[in-house]
Amino acid sequence: MTEPTAVAGVPMRWVGPLRISGNVADIETEVPLATFESPLWPSVGRGARISMMVDEGIVTTLVDERMTRSVFVRAADAQTAHLASLEVDARFDELREIVRKCGRFVELIGFHHEITANLLFLRFSFTTGDASGHNMATLAADALLSYLLDTIPGISYGSISGNYCTDKKATAINGILGRGKNVVTELLVPRDIVHARLHTTASAIAELNVRKNMIGTLLAGGIRSANAHYANMLLGFYLATGQDAANIVEGSQGVTVAEDRDGDLYFSCTLPNLIVGTVGNGKGLDFVEENLTRLGCREERDPGDNARRLAVIIAATVLCGELSLLAAQTNPGELMRAHVRWEREDKTTKVGG
Amino acid sequence: MTEPTAVAGVPMRWVGPLRISGNVADIETEVPLATFESPLWPSVGRGARISMMVDEGIVTTLVDERMTRSVFVRAADAQTAHLASLEVDARFDELREIVRKCGRFVELIGFHHEITANLLFLRFSFTTGDASGHNMATLAADALLSYLLDTIPGISYGSISGNYCTDKKATAINGILGRGKNVVTELLVPRDIVHARLHTTASAIAELNVRKNMIGTLLAGGIRSANAHYANMLLGFYLATGQDAANIVEGSQGVTVAEDRDGDLYFSCTLPNLIVGTVGNGKGLDFVEENLTRLGCREERDPGDNARRLAVIIAATVLCGELSLLAAQTNPGELMRAHVRWEREDKTTKVGG
Amino acid sequence: MTEPTAVAGVPMRWVGPLRISGNVADIETEVPLATFESPLWPSVGRGARISMMVDEGIVTTLVDERMTRSVFVRAADAQTAHLASLEVDARFDELREIVRKCGRFVELIGFHHEITANLLFLRFSFTTGDASGHNMATLAADALLSYLLDTIPGISYGSISGNYCTDKKATAINGILGRGKNVVTELLVPRDIVHARLHTTASAIAELNVRKNMIGTLLAGGIRSANAHYANMLLGFYLATGQDAANIVEGSQGVTVAEDRDGDLYFSCTLPNLIVGTVGNGKGLDFVEENLTRLGCREERDPGDNARRLAVIIAATVLCGELSLLAAQTNPGELMRAHVRWEREDKTTKVGG
Amino acid sequence: MTEPTAVAGVPMRWVGPLRISGNVADIETEVPLATFESPLWPSVGRGARISMMVDEGIVTTLVDERMTRSVFVRAADAQTAHLASLEVDARFDELREIVRKCGRFVELIGFHHEITANLLFLRFSFTTGDASGHNMATLAADALLSYLLDTIPGISYGSISGNYCTDKKATAINGILGRGKNVVTELLVPRDIVHARLHTTASAIAELNVRKNMIGTLLAGGIRSANAHYANMLLGFYLATGQDAANIVEGSQGVTVAEDRDGDLYFSCTLPNLIVGTVGNGKGLDFVEENLTRLGCREERDPGDNARRLAVIIAATVLCGELSLLAAQTNPGELMRAHVRWEREDKTTKVGG
Repeated sequence: MTEPTAVAGVPMRWVGPLRISGNVADIETEVPLATFESPLWPSVGRGARISMMVDEGIVTTLVDERMTRSVFVRAADAQTAHLASLEVDARFDELREIVRKCGRFVELIGFHHEITANLLFLRFSFTTGDASGHNMATLAADALLSYLLDTIPGISYGSISGNYCTDKKATAINGILGRGKNVVTELLVPRDIVHARLHTTASAIAELNVRKNMIGTLLAGGIRSANAHYANMLLGFYLATGQDAANIVEGSQGVTVAEDRDGDLYFSCTLPNLIVGTVGNGKGLDFVEENLTRLGCREERDPGDNARRLAVIIAATVLCGELSLLAAQTNPGELMRAHVRWEREDKTTKVGG
Repeated sequence: MTEPTAVAGVPMRWVGPLRISGNVADIETEVPLATFESPLWPSVGRGARISMMVDEGIVTTLVDERMTRSVFVRAADAQTAHLASLEVDARFDELREIVRKCGRFVELIGFHHEITANLLFLRFSFTTGDASGHNMATLAADALLSYLLDTIPGISYGSISGNYCTDKKATAINGILGRGKNVVTELLVPRDIVHARLHTTASAIAELNVRKNMIGTLLAGGIRSANAHYANMLLGFYLATGQDAANIVEGSQGVTVAEDRDGDLYFSCTLPNLIVGTVGNGKGLDFVEENLTRLGCREERDPGDNARRLAVIIAATVLCGELSLLAAQTNPGELMRAHVRWEREDKTTKVGG
Repeated sequence: MTEPTAVAGVPMRWVGPLRISGNVADIETEVPLATFESPLWPSVGRGARISMMVDEGIVTTLVDERMTRSVFVRAADAQTAHLASLEVDARFDELREIVRKCGRFVELIGFHHEITANLLFLRFSFTTGDASGHNMATLAADALLSYLLDTIPGISYGSISGNYCTDKKATAINGILGRGKNVVTELLVPRDIVHARLHTTASAIAELNVRKNMIGTLLAGGIRSANAHYANMLLGFYLATGQDAANIVEGSQGVTVAEDRDGDLYFSCTLPNLIVGTVGNGKGLDFVEENLTRLGCREERDPGDNARRLAVIIAATVLCGELSLLAAQTNPGELMRAHVRWEREDKTTKVGG
Repeated sequence: MTEPTAVAGVPMRWVGPLRISGNVADIETEVPLATFESPLWPSVGRGARISMMVDEGIVTTLVDERMTRSVFVRAADAQTAHLASLEVDARFDELREIVRKCGRFVELIGFHHEITANLLFLRFSFTTGDASGHNMATLAADALLSYLLDTIPGISYGSISGNYCTDKKATAINGILGRGKNVVTELLVPRDIVHARLHTTASAIAELNVRKNMIGTLLAGGIRSANAHYANMLLGFYLATGQDAANIVEGSQGVTVAEDRDGDLYFSCTLPNLIVGTVGNGKGLDFVEENLTRLGCREERDPGDNARRLAVIIAATVLCGELSLLAAQTNPGELMRAHVRWEREDKTTKVGG
C-alpha cells in the first residue's frame, strides 16, 4: 500500500427536479445519482417529473431516527444473564450519562436485550446528530460495555458487535426496532397523469405490486422486502453523497404500497432503514461537499436537521425510481425497449466530460 | 439532465498481495478496494498478509454459476397454471433454442416454478459468459415469456420480473437455487500465526463466530447471513471493478465457518451469490479496464473464465476482511483502537493524488 | 413408564358438508376437527356452507407431492465436497435403485445439494405412496447415506438429518423445493353470498388480506406465511386423522389471495406443505380409522390416491376457516361477538357425549 | 353439527421423572406426552433420566412473559398515522386503565407500533395471569381499538388482528419483542454420563449442533429456529395439558446451544415463545385437570404462578427430547435402530388400556 490513493470514478448525473413536502421540509431539488447502470437516470427522472405535476409532490414523513449497535456478554449461566439484564434496565440514567461523555452529538435513547443460553445480547439505540453514526455508536457501545463489565458480576466480554445491531446484513430486527431514519413517502398521482406519463392504470400498478413485490418476494423467502429495486436508487444516492453504501443491504428492506383510488394512484414507499449523514467519513471529499451543498444539506441548522433533510430527499428519490419501474413492468416489453433505447442513446454521452 | 455526466470519485487503494489457489486459478495479486471507509484497507491487508504465509493461501472452490430472472403469468385458475407449468417442463429443449437466439453467450441451464393461487412464477437460470448477465437474462426471459404467452392457452402477462429472481433483495431463494457465482473459500491458519498476527486464538475466533455470526444474526431474524461484514468488502471491490454494486444485497448473504483444529484455525467463507462480470455495463470505464487488466481478468480465455477468476479473487478478498474483523472483535477494545489509529494516520493521506 | 398408555381426549366434531372439485376428486363431505378451541367449528362451518352454494365448490389443484429428508456429510475440504456432489449428480440411477430396495412404496424422485465450507448438505425427495413418509424417507436416506459414505472418498458421517429437510421448523426451503402435498384451493363467491353470508364485501376482504396477511406478516418478519390461521384448521384435522400434527409448523406457511372481481370474491389458499397420509403411525387407532373411512380415504385405490384425496379435503377445510375469519375481521367487533356467543352456547354442549 | 361432540383419543404416557431447578421452582416430576409418534416417549425419557443424575437437574430461567395482540388502523395518510402513534405513546396510562376494566387478570404492560404507508400497526403486550391469554388479549385489544378510533382523529378501523402479533405463524417479531413465556433451560452433563448414557461426546454434540441446527437451518432459510425438534415435545405436552397446540408454530422457534466444556456437555434450549396456561379453553376437561393437578399446576398460588410452573416444566421436557435426539444423530444408524426397536416393542402396547 505504498502507492497513493486513487479514485474509482463512478459516473454521476443530476436528475430531476422532484418536489417534496412533509414533516421535515418542502423542497424542489435535483438529485445526484452515481451509478454504472445508466438507465437508472431516466427512470428516476420520469418519477421526478410526475412529482412536479402534483401540488404537494412527494409527501415524506420522518417517523423515527436512531443508530444502533449491539454487544453481547457471556454470563456464568442464564440466571446470571437475566439478573444482568435487570441491572441494565435499572441503570438507564447512568448509561445515558456514560454516553453523554462520549461526544457532543451522541445520545442514548433506548436499548433492547435478549438472552439465549448464557449469552446476553444488548442492542443500544442512539441519536447521532447529523452523522450516520456508525463510529459514534461503536464508541459509545464500547464505553457502555466496559462499564457493564466492570460493575456487573458474573459476566465477561463477548463482542463489541453481536450482529443483533444489525449492520449490513438482512434481518428483521432493523425494521421492527429501527435503525437509521424511518421515512414514509406518499404520492397521489391523478388518473390522467398515470395514463399519459406512465402509460398504465392505477389498478394495473396496484395488482402488480401485490403479485410481484408482495407475493413474489414472499415466495422467494424474502425478509421485509416488498419492493422492486430500492437498492438501485439508494446505491446511486449514497455514492453521490459520501454515505457508507454497504448500508443499502438493510436499506433494500422496505415496503411499496399501491392503491387504485377511483382511478388515481396512491403510491407509497416506506424505508425504515435509511442510514445517512451529512458529516463524517466521506463527507469531506470535494464532490460530496458540493453535492450536499447543492442539496441544501450543509446549512446552519440544528444538529440532525441537515441529515433529516437528506433522508427525505433520498426517500423521495427512491419513490421516483420505484414508481417508474413498476409502471414499466405492467406493460409487456416496455422494460426491454426502454433499456435498449437508453443504452443506445447513452453511447453518445461523454462520461466524465 | 442537460449537464454532462460527472463522476463520483470514490477513494481507491490496492491492498495485498493475497495468495489464492483452488479449482479456478492459482493467483498472487493485489486487489483494489474503493470505499469511503478507509479502515477497510488495513483490515483486508492484514488478512492478505496471512494468506501469503500459508503455502496454499486461500483455497477457493467455485461450486456453481448462473444468472437468474423470474417472470410470472396470470392463469385463468390454478389448474390452468398447473397445466402451463407441465407444458413448460415438457418444452425445455425448445426453450433452450429460443434462448440460443438471444445471444452468443447466454444459455438456458434450468428453471424452477411455483404456483400461488392462479399465478405461475417461472425462474430461469442462464450462463452468461463473462458478463454478470442481468441484461442477457432479462432479454432471454422476455423472449421466453413472449413465446409462452403465444403458445400456452389460458395464461396472460404478469410481469417480466416477479421478484422470485431475486435481484437486490434479501431472500432465501438465491442461496438455495443459486444466483451468481457460488464460491467457497478456506484458509488454514497455523496456531503461531493466529497468535502473532491476529493476537487471538483459534478457539476464540470459533466461539465468536458461533455466538455473533450464527446466534446473533439468528436472533435478529436474519436470513442466510452468518457473517460479520461481507458487504463491506464486496462494495469496495464491486465499485473498483465496475460491477453493479447494488448486488451486494444478496452478496451479503453468506456463511462464515471457523473451527479450532488443535490450535490451528480453519476459516471459511461461503459466498453463494457473487454477481460479477468482466464485460458489460461499467466495464468500459478507464479505471475499471485498468483494474481488471491488473487483476488478470482481461486475458484471452474461454468465455466465462475471466469472470470466474474475478469471482474467486473477490471471494478471497472477502475472507481477508472477515478474518481480520472477527479476530479484532475477540479482543476487548481492539476494534476501537484500530479505528482511531487508522483514521488518525489516514488524515495525512492525500486522497486522489 | 410402567403405567399403561392413556389417551388425551381432544373434543372432536364433524363440520360441513363442504363441496370440493378439482384434479383429484369431486367430493361432498363433512370433515372432522379435533380441538380445544370450540369456535373453530362454527367458523369452518360457515365457510363450508358457502362452498355448498357454489356449483364447483372449492376447486383444489394438487400441484406437487414429495417427502424429503436431508443428510449432511463432512468432507476433507470444500473441493472434496464439491467433487462428492458431482458424484452424487452422476449416480442418480444408482441412488434410485438403492431406494427401491428400501420399500415397496418409496421412490427417489430428486435431490438437491448445497455446500457450506467443507459440509455437503444433500436433500432427497421421495414419493411415499399413501404414507406421509417420515419414516420411509429416513430409512431411505439412511441407506443412501451409508452407500455414499462407502463409495465416495474423502467424506465422513455428518448427520442423518441436517435440518435442510426441513421437518417442523419454519424455513423457506420447503415452500421453494416442496415438502408434502402442494395444494391450491380456489373459491369464487358471488357478490350476494358475500353480502348475505359473510356480511362484508369482496373489496373489504381483498384489502384486509393485503394489509393483514401480506403487509402485517411481512412487518413481523414472517417467512412465507401470508395467512390468518391455517395452523388452526390443520391442527384440528391432523389430530382427527392421526397425522403427525407437529407438521403444522411448515403447514402454517402458505398464502391467501383474495380479489374483488366486480363484486364477486375470488378467494384462494395455497398450501405448499401438507404432510399427510392415510397409513402409518396413528392410522390404526379406532377413531382415526373411522374418520378416514368416513372421508372416503380408506378405499381400494392406486397407491397415493387416498392420501391425495385426504390432502385436498384438508386444504379445502383450511379455506373454509380462513375465509370465515377474514370476513369476520373486516367488521369491527364481529370477532369478539362471535367468540362470546359461541362460547356461551358451547357451555351447554356435552363434550364426549 | 347435530351430532354430539366426540373425542379424538391421542395416546398419552407419563415419562420421567425429570429434575428441574431455577428461578420458578424446584421440581421432580413425571410429564405427560400425548402423541401419535410413540418413539417420542423413550426419547424424552432418556433425557429425563440424565436430568436426575445431575444435582441441579435442568436449570430453568423464566426471562419474560406476555401475551400480545396487534391491531391496525388506516389513517388518512402517513403523517396522520404518525401523529396517531405519538398520541398512543402519550396515553399509556389511559390505555392501562381501559385494559384494567377488561378483566381482573389482564394488564397492559407495553406496546410497540410500526407504520407502513398510511397503515399504523399497534402491538399490545399484556400479562394474563394463569391463562395463556389469547381471549383476554383480544378482548382488551378490542377495547383499546374502539377507544383509539373514538378519540384520535383521522384513523379508521383496519383489523382487530394485524398479523403483527403474531399468532401461529412463523415470524421474527415474537422472539424479538416477546410472546408467551420466554424460558431458558440449561443442563451440565458430566463427561462420563455423556459417554455412558448418550453414547457420544460433548464435542460431537457441540459440532453437530452448529452444523445441523445452526448452519442447516440457516441454509434452509429458517427464521429463528436453531433446533432439531422442539415442535414434537411441545405438541405432546400441549395436547396433554389442554393448550392451544397450534401455538407450536411459534413455539418451534428457539435456539439450542451446546458446548464442550472440557469433556462435560453444556446443553441449553432457549424457548422464547411458550404460550401456555393452566386455566381457560380446554382446561376443564377431566384428563387435563388430572394432568395439571399431577404436575402441581392447580395449587393455590399467586396469579400466574401455576402457569409459570407449567412453562418451566414444558421447557425442561423440550430439553430432554432435544438432547436425546441430537445425541442419537451423532452416531451413524442409531436413530434408525432406535425407531425400529421401539416401534416393534410398541406393537405389543395396548393403547388406551
